Amino acid sequence: MSKNLTSRSEDYSKWYNELVVKADLAENSAVRGCMVIKPYGYAIWEKMQAELDRMFKETGHQNAYFPLFVPKSLFEAEEKNAEGFAKECAIVTHYRLQNDPDNPGKLRVDPEAKLEEELVVRPTSEAIIWSTYKGWIQSYRDLPILINQWANVVRWEMRTRLFLRTAEFLWQEGHTAHATKKEALAEAEQMNNVYAEFAESFMAMPVIKGVKTESERFAGAEETYCIEALMQDGKALQAGTSHFLGQNFAKAFDVKFTNNEGKLDYVWATSWGVSTRLMGALVMTHSDDNGLVLPPNLAPIQVIIVPIHKTDEQLEKISNLANHLIKEFKSKGISCKFDHRTTHRPGAKFAQYELQGVPLRIAIGPKDLENNTVELARRDTLTKEIVKLDDLVKTVDGLMLEIQDALFNKALDFRNVHITEVNDFEEFKAILENKTGFISAHWDGTLETEQKIKELTKATIRCIPMDAKNEVGICVFSGKPSSGRVLFAKAY
Amino acid sequence: MSKNLTSRSEDYSKWYNELVVKADLAENSAVRGCMVIKPYGYAIWEKMQAELDRMFKETGHQNAYFPLFVPKSLFEAEEKNAEGFAKECAIVTHYRLQNDPDNPGKLRVDPEAKLEEELVVRPTSEAIIWSTYKGWIQSYRDLPILINQWANVVRWEMRTRLFLRTAEFLWQEGHTAHATKKEALAEAEQMNNVYAEFAESFMAMPVIKGVKTESERFAGAEETYCIEALMQDGKALQAGTSHFLGQNFAKAFDVKFTNNEGKLDYVWATSWGVSTRLMGALVMTHSDDNGLVLPPNLAPIQVIIVPIHKTDEQLEKISNLANHLIKEFKSKGISCKFDHRTTHRPGAKFAQYELQGVPLRIAIGPKDLENNTVELARRDTLTKEIVKLDDLVKTVDGLMLEIQDALFNKALDFRNVHITEVNDFEEFKAILENKTGFISAHWDGTLETEQKIKELTKATIRCIPMDAKNEVGICVFSGKPSSGRVLFAKAY
Repeated sequence: MSKNLTSRSEDYSKWYNELVVKADLAENSAVRGCMVIKPYGYAIWEKMQAELDRMFKETGHQNAYFPLFVPKSLFEAEEKNAEGFAKECAIVTHYRLQNDPDNPGKLRVDPEAKLEEELVVRPTSEAIIWSTYKGWIQSYRDLPILINQWANVVRWEMRTRLFLRTAEFLWQEGHTAHATKKEALAEAEQMNNVYAEFAESFMAMPVIKGVKTESERFAGAEETYCIEALMQDGKALQAGTSHFLGQNFAKAFDVKFTNNEGKLDYVWATSWGVSTRLMGALVMTHSDDNGLVLPPNLAPIQVIIVPIHKTDEQLEKISNLANHLIKEFKSKGISCKFDHRTTHRPGAKFAQYELQGVPLRIAIGPKDLENNTVELARRDTLTKEIVKLDDLVKTVDGLMLEIQDALFNKALDFRNVHITEVNDFEEFKAILENKTGFISAHWDGTLETEQKIKELTKATIRCIPMDAKNEVGICVFSGKPSSGRVLFAKAY
Repeated sequence: MSKNLTSRSEDYSKWYNELVVKADLAENSAVRGCMVIKPYGYAIWEKMQAELDRMFKETGHQNAYFPLFVPKSLFEAEEKNAEGFAKECAIVTHYRLQNDPDNPGKLRVDPEAKLEEELVVRPTSEAIIWSTYKGWIQSYRDLPILINQWANVVRWEMRTRLFLRTAEFLWQEGHTAHATKKEALAEAEQMNNVYAEFAESFMAMPVIKGVKTESERFAGAEETYCIEALMQDGKALQAGTSHFLGQNFAKAFDVKFTNNEGKLDYVWATSWGVSTRLMGALVMTHSDDNGLVLPPNLAPIQVIIVPIHKTDEQLEKISNLANHLIKEFKSKGISCKFDHRTTHRPGAKFAQYELQGVPLRIAIGPKDLENNTVELARRDTLTKEIVKLDDLVKTVDGLMLEIQDALFNKALDFRNVHITEVNDFEEFKAILENKTGFISAHWDGTLETEQKIKELTKATIRCIPMDAKNEVGICVFSGKPSSGRVLFAKAY
């Protein structure tokens, strides 16, 4: 291949790492584990943000902003949460640099400028937010509080990969406060549904909605709802989580309210988040050995027009047509770019936009001008057709929907084929190694079995699906009774 | 006043601090110097972001994202820049907490988890970005790079005030790379013009465009363009800056390119930013002793409808009308909210929206239903009128423009009255103390005089205006020759 992209079958992991860089989505930075999100990658993230933000607002949420830093004493207040994140926190201990007397021109930390209390760079914001909510909530009239924050967070992970696991990442985190357990549970489930709708309708990525087992829950949560997707290598990816936090944070930060019967009670909480990890999921769900494949609903450029010309006169005629088409597309809400660079040949442009996953490519040459046609190429199927100019806008408009659906259905077929019901542990191991994907198996509900299976196979329980059938059975590992099947998989 | 808001004449500074909190814009957090931006305040910031982002994209810029942390060795590479920020940096030295053996349930920094190289939490991103650009630029074909980033930054200021000066703040920072000095200078000036247009057209805040003196320049810049606004207390506020960075960062990070003649040269740079400080400027430009006054172009709610009713039947009729009006307004692009809470009286609602600066209030009572009228109240003038329903949408639509213009013109008149030409240092001091505002005076161009005047009066040179007349004269302080007037003021 001209792009020298490793193929998926050769080395899926290498293919991903190369693709993210070559398609200009992101790259590693000078800071260990932190990425630079490049303009093309950021433009996709902006489209994700815009849709999610709209969905959050439509469900009654408002945005706000809370501090980057969490004083250590607040951080440790909710013990389980603190324990879950303590081992991977960036800690600010000083607030000044000074000239290094031993190294002219260099700086060193000023030992005199040590903070009285260390500050944790937020790995998640429950602590700082619930210490704030304490001042906002007195009565049931102050509830619910439905707030979301777009922010950066830091988790000092040891092994990092662009988008999938980075020390700093961008995300949104919703933090809501409620008067009743029922309302908080409904909120947590609602937001998981919002994530599922976003994943399927915009990312064209089918997901399974479920709840986590206790050992896989968010630190400090009483229930974690999640959406799980399947990547092309048969590994699962947790794409979003929504937590019912019970009264844990309200108790840790002493947030009580007077209910409508005049009694004092602790407030009920949820939190929910998706992150730039979704970028990794998007890449791994649809892309192929030629590069990115983007669903039209998230593609920064939906249609690229490439001129094929020898003379300036031809280019001028093609430019006039292209500018007319851009206006027509714009009126239909389709984003279109005309690449009129004369520093690059058409072939190089074709390769670039293929690599970058632009859903449709229009090529216009002198013959097309004569015949009132264009060449229209689909990125997902790599097919080409000659289209009459009169039909072009309508055809492209229709293809936007068609491609979006085709990508979803292709991913859905792949996912469905890769859910295997298994009743025997030898088969479990064989399927996991050879066929890969999700394994639907009975589990006895114990942490012990869950851990043992993980040790032996590296598979974890991805979720207990929301739509699980009511089916008693026998645990695939222990042979003990099971009240239903859960989904196992190796995961990102 | 029912809101117990300190009046501006009593204590302007206290008025501001109270207003920001009482109007639900922001509050101080548990972290020294860091603020919580509350939903209503954040909604205004979102409107600012949307307009600025559009303007940046219209001028050819793309968004991207660079790491929060800057390794110390990169931070110190551009010496002037490092010197300018070293004294107010948050420094990450460790990456893990552990259980404190002396205090069960508490955490402490794990001494084993010390970073080999300390990380500076970005106070500005030139260093991390130019270390990245080095990998992106080889030839003039890679230029220009026109990138903006929306981000949080941290400057460990000793004295902080909500929005105006906070340890963490939100901002955008543009960072561009160019092949020629001329192009970089044009970019820096262009972005200062974009800021001026935004300030005047959206914030309704008149600004003076100028350049900074050497001592007031951004650390590492060769020229700093700025927009300067005047607050109601006669103090100036720097609302945005745009820097021509010369080849300083290219030299510090060794970023060279092959120009179109095949020769190697260092790349030319600009950077430019505005921050949540603009929120403070917005508050202080228009608001009054009753609370916030928001220009319609940035008001999250432009029209509030308050029902006045005794019976449920009346409320239902008013609700039907209100919902109809909301649709009508929406079709005109006017955001309208109907406050149907039955837990609050109309008077309390009136006070709340007055405090929160909603430009127009519509009150609808039973009499109005009979007469097909509403009561329409303007926040800026505090005037009320009875408007026929048939005329309402047109009237409101017209008022959106009228109020926006009125606020700008009022602020412009105030600002213009507060620019005083002064030729004598005694008069300089008297004007500064009594009349306040900008003083247009001759200056001999020396740092010595600039510093002396600052010591004696606390006034700084806010800028050398872009439209300064060509006028030779005598320095107001030293009596030495001057090539033109500059603007002095006390400033935020």
